[in-house]
Amino acid sequence: MYELGVVYRNIQRAPQEAADGLAALGSATVHEAMGRVGLLKPYMRPIYPGAQVSGTAVTVLLHPGDNWMMHVVAEQIRPGDVVVAAVTAECTDGYFGDLLATSFQARGARALVIDAGVRDVRTLQEMNFPVWSKCISSKGTIKATLGSVNIPVVCAGMWVSPGDVIVADDDGVVCVPAARAMETLAAARKRESFEGEKRAKLASGILGLDMYQMREPLAAAGLKYID
Amino acid sequence: MYELGVVYRNIQRAPQEAADGLAALGSATVHEAMGRVGLLKPYMRPIYPGAQVSGTAVTVLLHPGDNWMMHVVAEQIRPGDVVVAAVTAECTDGYFGDLLATSFQARGARALVIDAGVRDVRTLQEMNFPVWSKCISSKGTIKATLGSVNIPVVCAGMWVSPGDVIVADDDGVVCVPAARAMETLAAARKRESFEGEKRAKLASGILGLDMYQMREPLAAAGLKYID
Amino acid sequence: MYELGVVYRNIQRAPQEAADGLAALGSATVHEAMGRVGLLKPYMRPIYPGAQVSGTAVTVLLHPGDNWMMHVVAEQIRPGDVVVAAVTAECTDGYFGDLLATSFQARGARALVIDAGVRDVRTLQEMNFPVWSKCISSKGTIKATLGSVNIPVVCAGMWVSPGDVIVADDDGVVCVPAARAMETLAAARKRESFEGEKRAKLASGILGLDMYQMREPLAAAGLKYID
Amino acid sequence: MYELGVVYRNIQRAPQEAADGLAALGSATVHEAMGRVGLLKPYMRPIYPGAQVSGTAVTVLLHPGDNWMMHVVAEQIRPGDVVVAAVTAECTDGYFGDLLATSFQARGARALVIDAGVRDVRTLQEMNFPVWSKCISSKGTIKATLGSVNIPVVCAGMWVSPGDVIVADDDGVVCVPAARAMETLAAARKRESFEGEKRAKLASGILGLDMYQMREPLAAAGLKYID
Amino acid sequence: MYELGVVYRNIQRAPQEAADGLAALGSATVHEAMGRVGLLKPYMRPIYPGAQVSGTAVTVLLHPGDNWMMHVVAEQIRPGDVVVAAVTAECTDGYFGDLLATSFQARGARALVIDAGVRDVRTLQEMNFPVWSKCISSKGTIKATLGSVNIPVVCAGMWVSPGDVIVADDDGVVCVPAARAMETLAAARKRESFEGEKRAKLASGILGLDMYQMREPLAAAGLKYID
Amino acid sequence: MYELGVVYRNIQRAPQEAADGLAALGSATVHEAMGRVGLLKPYMRPIYPGAQVSGTAVTVLLHPGDNWMMHVVAEQIRPGDVVVAAVTAECTDGYFGDLLATSFQARGARALVIDAGVRDVRTLQEMNFPVWSKCISSKGTIKATLGSVNIPVVCAGMWVSPGDVIVADDDGVVCVPAARAMETLAAARKRESFEGEKRAKLASGILGLDMYQMREPLAAAGLKYID
Repeated sequence: MYELGVVYRNIQRAPQEAADGLAALGSATVHEAMGRVGLLKPYMRPIYPGAQVSGTAVTVLLHPGDNWMMHVVAEQIRPGDVVVAAVTAECTDGYFGDLLATSFQARGARALVIDAGVRDVRTLQEMNFPVWSKCISSKGTIKATLGSVNIPVVCAGMWVSPGDVIVADDDGVVCVPAARAMETLAAARKRESFEGEKRAKLASGILGLDMYQMREPLAAAGLKYID
Repeated sequence: MYELGVVYRNIQRAPQEAADGLAALGSATVHEAMGRVGLLKPYMRPIYPGAQVSGTAVTVLLHPGDNWMMHVVAEQIRPGDVVVAAVTAECTDGYFGDLLATSFQARGARALVIDAGVRDVRTLQEMNFPVWSKCISSKGTIKATLGSVNIPVVCAGMWVSPGDVIVADDDGVVCVPAARAMETLAAARKRESFEGEKRAKLASGILGLDMYQMREPLAAAGLKYID
Repeated sequence: MYELGVVYRNIQRAPQEAADGLAALGSATVHEAMGRVGLLKPYMRPIYPGAQVSGTAVTVLLHPGDNWMMHVVAEQIRPGDVVVAAVTAECTDGYFGDLLATSFQARGARALVIDAGVRDVRTLQEMNFPVWSKCISSKGTIKATLGSVNIPVVCAGMWVSPGDVIVADDDGVVCVPAARAMETLAAARKRESFEGEKRAKLASGILGLDMYQMREPLAAAGLKYID
Repeated sequence: MYELGVVYRNIQRAPQEAADGLAALGSATVHEAMGRVGLLKPYMRPIYPGAQVSGTAVTVLLHPGDNWMMHVVAEQIRPGDVVVAAVTAECTDGYFGDLLATSFQARGARALVIDAGVRDVRTLQEMNFPVWSKCISSKGTIKATLGSVNIPVVCAGMWVSPGDVIVADDDGVVCVPAARAMETLAAARKRESFEGEKRAKLASGILGLDMYQMREPLAAAGLKYID
Repeated sequence: MYELGVVYRNIQRAPQEAADGLAALGSATVHEAMGRVGLLKPYMRPIYPGAQVSGTAVTVLLHPGDNWMMHVVAEQIRPGDVVVAAVTAECTDGYFGDLLATSFQARGARALVIDAGVRDVRTLQEMNFPVWSKCISSKGTIKATLGSVNIPVVCAGMWVSPGDVIVADDDGVVCVPAARAMETLAAARKRESFEGEKRAKLASGILGLDMYQMREPLAAAGLKYID
Repeated sequence: MYELGVVYRNIQRAPQEAADGLAALGSATVHEAMGRVGLLKPYMRPIYPGAQVSGTAVTVLLHPGDNWMMHVVAEQIRPGDVVVAAVTAECTDGYFGDLLATSFQARGARALVIDAGVRDVRTLQEMNFPVWSKCISSKGTIKATLGSVNIPVVCAGMWVSPGDVIVADDDGVVCVPAARAMETLAAARKRESFEGEKRAKLASGILGLDMYQMREPLAAAGLKYID
């Protein structure tokens, strides 16, 4: 967040197995598997429901009302990347529309995560190019000031380094540091493997109180039942 | 909102006819029939469109970032209930996901109304378990502090007592006190019975100005037409 | 915004060609064609996705919690109009529902743009009557205080005069002053005519950096690439 | 929050000793003494710093943009009361200014707590009449619709019944139910009696880690120190 | 709000008597005298308490993050003016600090009203140069894009034309159209002349219920007293 | 933001000259000297006006509603430090009051910067212990979950590493990375050295248009003056 006017061309991307595999687990499970860290603020919402992606982050730092660097970051995209765009101050402008999406998609980008606004959202849905953003806005931007590409950024309250894995779905967006990607994949898969059995028990009417053996600690904490 | 660590097991639920019948009338009509009171703040939104429910409230008071009591309230659900969850301070965490929804649904709950966040929203929609919430968030919660179940709570700015009727649809969420449920059902039905005729008149081009005889009071208030 | 209790019956509407033709171009393109002015604040959202309209503005100034003037403005609607409703102070109440929509639609209105709340949103979608609003709320309103019809108003931060063209879609709402409607139509069409070629180039993998000849100005601004 | 058009003249006020005595303890200590419940949302701020009051609640339920009932509640004020004003929907209008403050002060009111706006704030400070409010606004209100006086209300997210004790200072506003006022006074005084000794220890450089014997539970929870 | 790149040098300022005289009456009284219109949104707050000004508006339209036009507007200031700054989109940047304030003050400006951020607020207070703004921010701005000077603008939700009178104090900011400035001055003075007598009555314990003869209309509206 | 349950005891603090010297320059000048980066979001406000500090960051990552780690960070404070507290999700609770402030002050801390709430603000002002926070709240917190101390954190949208220099005043809070502290001190001092001369010129009536030679680029950009 402190270096302006630079583009890092060579970044260390997280292992592809993790970058590809985390999507299926979903942001909530991955967030739990991380120990409840890594979540971008919940104001980040998908522009259309149903998309579920993961990929390696290429980052871009923008200035308010200026999308010049979006064109610079396009060149750094490799297939399987997710572009993560941060802004140096609060801004709701529409930095990204169908033309940039066409370019990003041609480069192999899987999604955009932007702490600002986007536009042409209906076309983006038709293109099947998902975006998680702070808002939707027709407001266009200028091209006047340098930001940076592939430096670590703060996006929606979370620290994202180039090469980290981004996991995004209808529940939100999680960032998994590259160095922890494989262990997180394993932990999330393990976590998910227990879910089916739990769901079956709960569906049969067994209570979480019993399944998780909560009655004793609740009583110890002083919970009282009154008839 | 003032009593912690208690679970009331026996609550007086509103008459089932009202609890079942108010759904069809919708939150806006019920709110009008109540004399324009009872509405939860409009930031409460359904996690997917199209659900329209009513049911008797079982309430739960939670602490920020702690969903322990959600398991306690599950045991108090009876078929036809709507769980109403309040938090002692502002919180956007995801207190509720597909596992708890499975449990709630197995107990017969019709919906959840929560002044905080939920997650697994795509699965919840597939399960056909509607939720009205303040936000959507992957953020998980801990299980450390006692709240209460079936005490009166303030949820999204409205006072909800256990056994009250909750009416929720795409327009929002209304609480009807149990003691007024039957009279509200009657008033809402009466109100709705006039709607068809009014709609037909308006559709034919008759103006509300004439249908509601507003021209005279508007002129008396000083309205001037300028050509 | 300063005159209360008046209804202007004769307003100068923008040329019909522009009022009808701008819809197809969309709010983002029209906003750019205007020189990046005219956009209502992005908190204005459609109550359902997919609608795309343009039409001539008839305006109404309301008071908080009072929709009396909505009935007065109904009479001033002509086929092809879009009603633009402003409020003298922040308000989230539901000023508009299916009955008023029936009346507006019978008069030929294409849409409502309101800096407040609406209700009966599911029915409005079934009626195919689009609304762009600040929020959705079941909260009803009273009929006690005079506002005005067809005076210039500020709606969601933008100045709208009666007869201006409103363009609204999933990206937001733009106001085009009547006097600039034809030139804006021409500029927007010209702008759009270039889009197909650009999109094809970008889809083929050509970068915006090259297509827009940005490499030189970026270097001149000091951008550095680091391997 | 459900009954409109009524004024309860006889309310049971909390014991005067508690109503008078809680001010000195402050909202934070009282909130802790209550078990961390009773706090109004923190957007409620004093219009000037330094006021610290407690008193018995007389309540009023208002409609958006309508302060008619503020005159009705004035008559119900007794010396030592704090007026608590709630609104049936979000509103930022200035419901209260120097004239009403003169009347309230003449009746013996100690303060106003209002989930909306106030005006004439400089004069109110000169009069030494404190107000805790959601905002400050010059916007005036009408007198057209009935609310209620001395019914239980939800003010800034908290349930307040007539006769409860309100404690307000620069940290916020807490409501203490009348039935718990005396025990809360005792608990808050006890809590405060320990503060001096604690402060002296901490000022001398003793750490909370040692004073509260936290090192062992932190280690048990897994805290690791890295040099 | 629609014209970019122009500076109007000759504007028609409101009569000086009104521009000078309205300050003493205050924003709340002026707002009432206008018939409850003209108020900027209440998020506009003074950067320090106690300032109370009025003056003729010179306006400037800015772009997000760009304060170039602030230097252009400086030249158009005449003694007694208040600069009113609007932005084409939401922005919290600090457009204005002690240097610009020195320049504005040297030109005779009485205040700045800006729908964005300012900085150097402690110095501005020492200079006795009041500002009403949306926020305070150290964030600097660039000088790259043309806006306009002395066109009508929307500032904080209100339409302001060059030459209108701005009245600002601790309660907020009101805009009085130039053409209505003298009548508003008269109406506000008349209104204020009644205040002393009213205040004396209320201070003596007479209720507004009696002074304004509200008991009858309240009873007619159905108000019930319950003992 | 990704590591939980660890306390780093040995951190590399920025040079003391910069840590001590940046306070006098103020957050706005330092932010400019950094190239307009490093600013925490402007919702961070001082709890009382007039404080102006700089110091080296010791960081703490907290969970919503849990201030356990505030006691852990206290031990890591050295004279001249500023504690920077981040939370893993949005929270407005009052994590910090007069007891913790006594402890922090005894350890030599100059200030607290916290992306959450504080309480006992009047006492904090009397103690002369400044805090920049998101809000003020009486709401207390529990001590149940491990965070971390002296890991890099995101506080109010900005990345802060242990040992960085924090500069805070009435305009906001800026973070200067330790590695850039000395060059920033030099750049900020140079920047400030020009201010006196500029201020004198502007005070004499010279316009920024002339002093900064803006007339030509404005004309080149197309600015038109209309008489």
